[in-house]
Amino acid sequence: MEIINWKELLYPYAQTVDELLLKFRSLDKECRQLGIYSPIDSVTGRLKRPASILEKAGRKQISPDRIEEEIEDIAGIRILCQFVEDIPKVIEMVRKRKDMTVIEERDYITNTKPSGYRSYHMIIRYPLFTALGEKTVPAEIQIRTNAMNFWATAEHSLRYKYSGNIPQDLQDRLKNCAEAAFHLDQEMATIREEITNAQRLNEIKNNL
Amino acid sequence: MEIINWKELLYPYAQTVDELLLKFRSLDKECRQLGIYSPIDSVTGRLKRPASILEKAGRKQISPDRIEEEIEDIAGIRILCQFVEDIPKVIEMVRKRKDMTVIEERDYITNTKPSGYRSYHMIIRYPLFTALGEKTVPAEIQIRTNAMNFWATAEHSLRYKYSGNIPQDLQDRLKNCAEAAFHLDQEMATIREEITNAQRLNEIKNNL
Amino acid sequence: MEIINWKELLYPYAQTVDELLLKFRSLDKECRQLGIYSPIDSVTGRLKRPASILEKAGRKQISPDRIEEEIEDIAGIRILCQFVEDIPKVIEMVRKRKDMTVIEERDYITNTKPSGYRSYHMIIRYPLFTALGEKTVPAEIQIRTNAMNFWATAEHSLRYKYSGNIPQDLQDRLKNCAEAAFHLDQEMATIREEITNAQRLNEIKNNL
Amino acid sequence: MEIINWKELLYPYAQTVDELLLKFRSLDKECRQLGIYSPIDSVTGRLKRPASILEKAGRKQISPDRIEEEIEDIAGIRILCQFVEDIPKVIEMVRKRKDMTVIEERDYITNTKPSGYRSYHMIIRYPLFTALGEKTVPAEIQIRTNAMNFWATAEHSLRYKYSGNIPQDLQDRLKNCAEAAFHLDQEMATIREEITNAQRLNEIKNNL
Repeated sequence: MEIINWKELLYPYAQTVDELLLKFRSLDKECRQLGIYSPIDSVTGRLKRPASILEKAGRKQISPDRIEEEIEDIAGIRILCQFVEDIPKVIEMVRKRKDMTVIEERDYITNTKPSGYRSYHMIIRYPLFTALGEKTVPAEIQIRTNAMNFWATAEHSLRYKYSGNIPQDLQDRLKNCAEAAFHLDQEMATIREEITNAQRLNEIKNNL
Repeated sequence: MEIINWKELLYPYAQTVDELLLKFRSLDKECRQLGIYSPIDSVTGRLKRPASILEKAGRKQISPDRIEEEIEDIAGIRILCQFVEDIPKVIEMVRKRKDMTVIEERDYITNTKPSGYRSYHMIIRYPLFTALGEKTVPAEIQIRTNAMNFWATAEHSLRYKYSGNIPQDLQDRLKNCAEAAFHLDQEMATIREEITNAQRLNEIKNNL
Repeated sequence: MEIINWKELLYPYAQTVDELLLKFRSLDKECRQLGIYSPIDSVTGRLKRPASILEKAGRKQISPDRIEEEIEDIAGIRILCQFVEDIPKVIEMVRKRKDMTVIEERDYITNTKPSGYRSYHMIIRYPLFTALGEKTVPAEIQIRTNAMNFWATAEHSLRYKYSGNIPQDLQDRLKNCAEAAFHLDQEMATIREEITNAQRLNEIKNNL
Repeated sequence: MEIINWKELLYPYAQTVDELLLKFRSLDKECRQLGIYSPIDSVTGRLKRPASILEKAGRKQISPDRIEEEIEDIAGIRILCQFVEDIPKVIEMVRKRKDMTVIEERDYITNTKPSGYRSYHMIIRYPLFTALGEKTVPAEIQIRTNAMNFWATAEHSLRYKYSGNIPQDLQDRLKNCAEAAFHLDQEMATIREEITNAQRLNEIKNNL
C-alpha cells in the first residue's frame, strides 16, 4: 500500500486555486473600476480534501498513482453570477484567455441533472511555474447563478452524507427547493436589464 | 464650504471593517474546524463611498462636521446565512462579544419593509486603537439569508439609480422577485435539519 | 500517553496571530497615510510548530496538559524597526493599548545575551472571542531592528540544528556577524534624523 | 494639458504587482514545504505613485502619452535574499519562467553605483489578461540582500527629499553605512553554508 504525501501532491493545486482566484476576482474589480458591467458577482475557490479524493478514486477505481492524471477537479474555483444571462459572458471570458486552455465543457444548465442540479462546468489546463519547473495543472471552473449555488450547496452536503443514496422523501423536498431556486432566477430575469444598467451607472457615479 | 479629507476621515472606518471581517470570518472557520455547525455562510464588508455619504448627509440634513457622529453605517459588514433559523444564532454571537457594544437593533425580518426588504440590522460601537490613540467607531452589521441578500442587492442598485423613485411597473416586478426569494427560504426550511446535520458530519469526516 | 489535537489546540493562537498582525500592520499604514513618522518598518507573525512546542515542553519539563498555560510564545509577532531609536516608540504603543495587557518585558538590547542576541520581548495576554466563548491567549511580541533580526534569524537556524550546542568555531564566526550587525545599527544612527524627516516629507508629497 | 485618469492607467500595473507577488511568494513557501533550500527570504511589491511618475517623466522629458511605454518601473517587486550567493539563483529562476519575458538586466552588484547602491535589476514584460483583453505590462524586479536593502531604503528617502542633491557631509555618512552593510554581507558569507544546511534540515524536521 502506497502512502500519499498529501502536502507535496496538493501544493501545485493549492497554488493554481490561488492564482485563478486572484485572476478572476481582478476581472470583476476591474469592470467595477472602469464602469463596465461585470458579469461576475463573486468568486470562491476550494481544494478537494484528501477524504473526498480517496472516496472518488475508490468509486471510479483509480489507482493512487493515477490520481493526478485522472481526477480533474482537485483544484476548483466557482464563479457566481447574479443572472442566468451573465453565464455565457463568463464562459466567453474563460475561453478567450491564453494563460489557460479549456479542454472540456459540460452544460448542466441546458441539460439539468435529474436531481435538479444546474451549473456550467469547464475543465481547464493551467501552466504553473513551480520551484521544480513548469507543470500543467488541471482545474475545474464552475459557473452558476447565486440561486443555482444555494441549491447545489445544500444538495452537495446531503449527497455526501448519504453517500449518494438520499431517501426519497428528502429527494422530493430537495426537488421543491430546486424549483423555488429556478423560479427565483426566472423572476430576476424580468428585472435584469434595469439592474445591470443601474449598477453600471452607480459604479460610474461612485468613481467620480 | 469645508473640504473633507476623505482619506483621513475614512481610515478608522476602513480599519474597523478589516477587523470585523477578520473576526467574523474566523468564527465560521473555527466552527468548521471543530465540527460545530456554523450559522455563518459568508461575510463581506464595505465602506460607504464618499458619494453615498454626501448623498445621505444631504438627504438627512447633516452638516459635514457631524458626519462622523450621525452617519452610523460608514463601516458595514454583512453576515450571510444559509437558513432563516441561523439568524438568531448570529445575533446572539454578536450580543455576547465584549470587544464591541450593540447600541441599536432593527428587525426588518419580522417587520418586512413595504418594498419587500428583509434583513436584521445591528448598530455597534467598536473600540479601535489607532496611531493617534483610542477611538470608538460606529459600524452596522447586517444579517440576512442568501435569498434575502440576493433580492436586497438588486433592489439597492435600482433604488440608488432612481434616487428612491422606482417606477411602479418595476416595483411590481421587484415585489415578485421578493416573493420568489421568500418562497425559496421557506422551501429551504423544510430541509434545514437534514442539511445542518449533514454539514457537521461532513466537516468531522474531512478533518480526520 | 495523551494525544494532542493540534488543530484544536492551535486554533486560538493562529487567530491571535492574525488579529495582532492586522492591528500592528494597520498602525504602520495609518502613519504613512497621515504623514506621521512610522516607527514600524514591517511586521511578521508565526505560530510555534508542534515539533518546537514539544521540544520546549520536553526541555522545560512541562506536561502536555500544562502546555497552554506555561508556553507563552506559541503565538508570536515580530515588529521590525529601521533604527534602534524606534524601538522605545513601539514599546510605548504596545503598553498604551487597552485591547491587550502586557504582563512581562525582557530587554535583551540593554542586556545583550552572551551569544550576541539583541531584541526586546513583551509577553501579552490577548482577549479573544471564539465560537466557544471568550478566551485569554498569551502571545509574545518581539521588537528589533532589521540588523538585529538578520543576525537572530541566522543564529536561530544554527541553534535549532545543533540543539543549542553550536561548535566553538562557528560560534566565533556568528559573533563576528553580530558585531557587524551592531556596527551597521550604529552607522545608521548617524543618519537617522535626516532619514525620518525625509520619509515624513515624502509621504506627505505622495499623498497629495 | 492632458488630464491623466490614474485609476485607469494604474489598474493593469496594480494587477501585475499582485500576480508577481503571489507567484514569487509561492516559490518561497513551496521550497519550505518540500524541504528544498529557498534562495528567497521575502518579497514585497509597490506601484510607483503618480507624484513619482510625473517627476520621472519630467526629468526624462517623457510626454504624458508616452508614460506607459517609456517608464518601465511603474510596477515593481523586490526579492530579498539572506546571502549574496542566493542572488544568482533567484536570477536563474526568473530567466527560466515562461509566464514572463526578461528584456533587460542591470547588475549594480558587480558594478556598485558611486553612491554605494548595490542591487540586481531585471526588466520584464508580463502578459496580463484584463477585462478589455490581453495586455503586455512592463515591470521591474529588484533582487538584493537584506543588508543591501536597508541601505538602499535609507538612501532612497534622502535622494527623493533632496531631489538628488544630498549634501556632501550626509553623503559621507551614507557611504559609511553602505560599507557597514557590505561588511555585514561579507561576514554572513562565512557562515552561509552552515546556515543553509541548518534551515533545510529544520524545515524537514518541522514538516514531519
